[in-house]
Amino acid sequence: MAIEIERKFLVDYNKWQAADKPVGSKLKQGYIVDDENRTVRLRIAGTAAHLTFKTGTTGITRNEYEYEIPADDAAELFTQFVKTSLEKTRYCLTHDNKLWEVDVFEGDNEGLIVAEIELDSEDEPFMLPPWVGQEVSGDTRYYNSSLSVKPFKSW
Amino acid sequence: MAIEIERKFLVDYNKWQAADKPVGSKLKQGYIVDDENRTVRLRIAGTAAHLTFKTGTTGITRNEYEYEIPADDAAELFTQFVKTSLEKTRYCLTHDNKLWEVDVFEGDNEGLIVAEIELDSEDEPFMLPPWVGQEVSGDTRYYNSSLSVKPFKSW
Repeated sequence: MAIEIERKFLVDYNKWQAADKPVGSKLKQGYIVDDENRTVRLRIAGTAAHLTFKTGTTGITRNEYEYEIPADDAAELFTQFVKTSLEKTRYCLTHDNKLWEVDVFEGDNEGLIVAEIELDSEDEPFMLPPWVGQEVSGDTRYYNSSLSVKPFKSW
Repeated sequence: MAIEIERKFLVDYNKWQAADKPVGSKLKQGYIVDDENRTVRLRIAGTAAHLTFKTGTTGITRNEYEYEIPADDAAELFTQFVKTSLEKTRYCLTHDNKLWEVDVFEGDNEGLIVAEIELDSEDEPFMLPPWVGQEVSGDTRYYNSSLSVKPFKSW
């Protein structure tokens, strides 16, 4: 089990477009369980696939349990067990020695770009990259599980 | 992914008591998902724990995807993700060169003993052990997922 402490920010589209970026990776993820306080997620990224159990979906700290599974299984489980899903391209980059993950959403969530930073403690200080805008850490609408049910374009 | 073809029978209590038996192993299992056509099961057997995804819960053939996970994680996931659960002691033995699994249920399912044989095809012939009674393969009440919701003693 891992403790995940994350803060989440909206990303300015124009500044992000103009920024130097690494190559992104396509992610397809779906939810097998999506209750108020727990999710079971199936994520497929190329030939890698993971099952992730998360609890405590309030605040910025969660328990996370993650297991890699065979990609062939994942494709079948996705069809048979996933209730709601989304796709995005993820860019991983460092700013001020901290890792940021920037998700550019697709499909019904197109237009939404979200940046996340993983912290070692809830009060850890960090520098904001220039393309980062409003913080949305506490906003449940931006949970990926929520976006798979009520996508950005429907807001 | 594995194909699971199983037939299930009630076991005669007195004949089973009188039979030569191997040592049994305690199983604790709970359901994270329990829909009509799919289940996600978490099973803990001593220090081993598995997540099992099953589909096609009609007839005697199912698709099964199983992954071992760390026992420490399993104990935490059991508390946080399992909705309904049951406990039983499982005895594995061979009869006429086929493996039989006999489950002696506990708690609210006490009094119920069920034997299962795994087959290579739906029409494979096999010999019945002397302690085997009525076949219940098609009876959804005897699905372990059902027994975790509506236990035997409540029938």
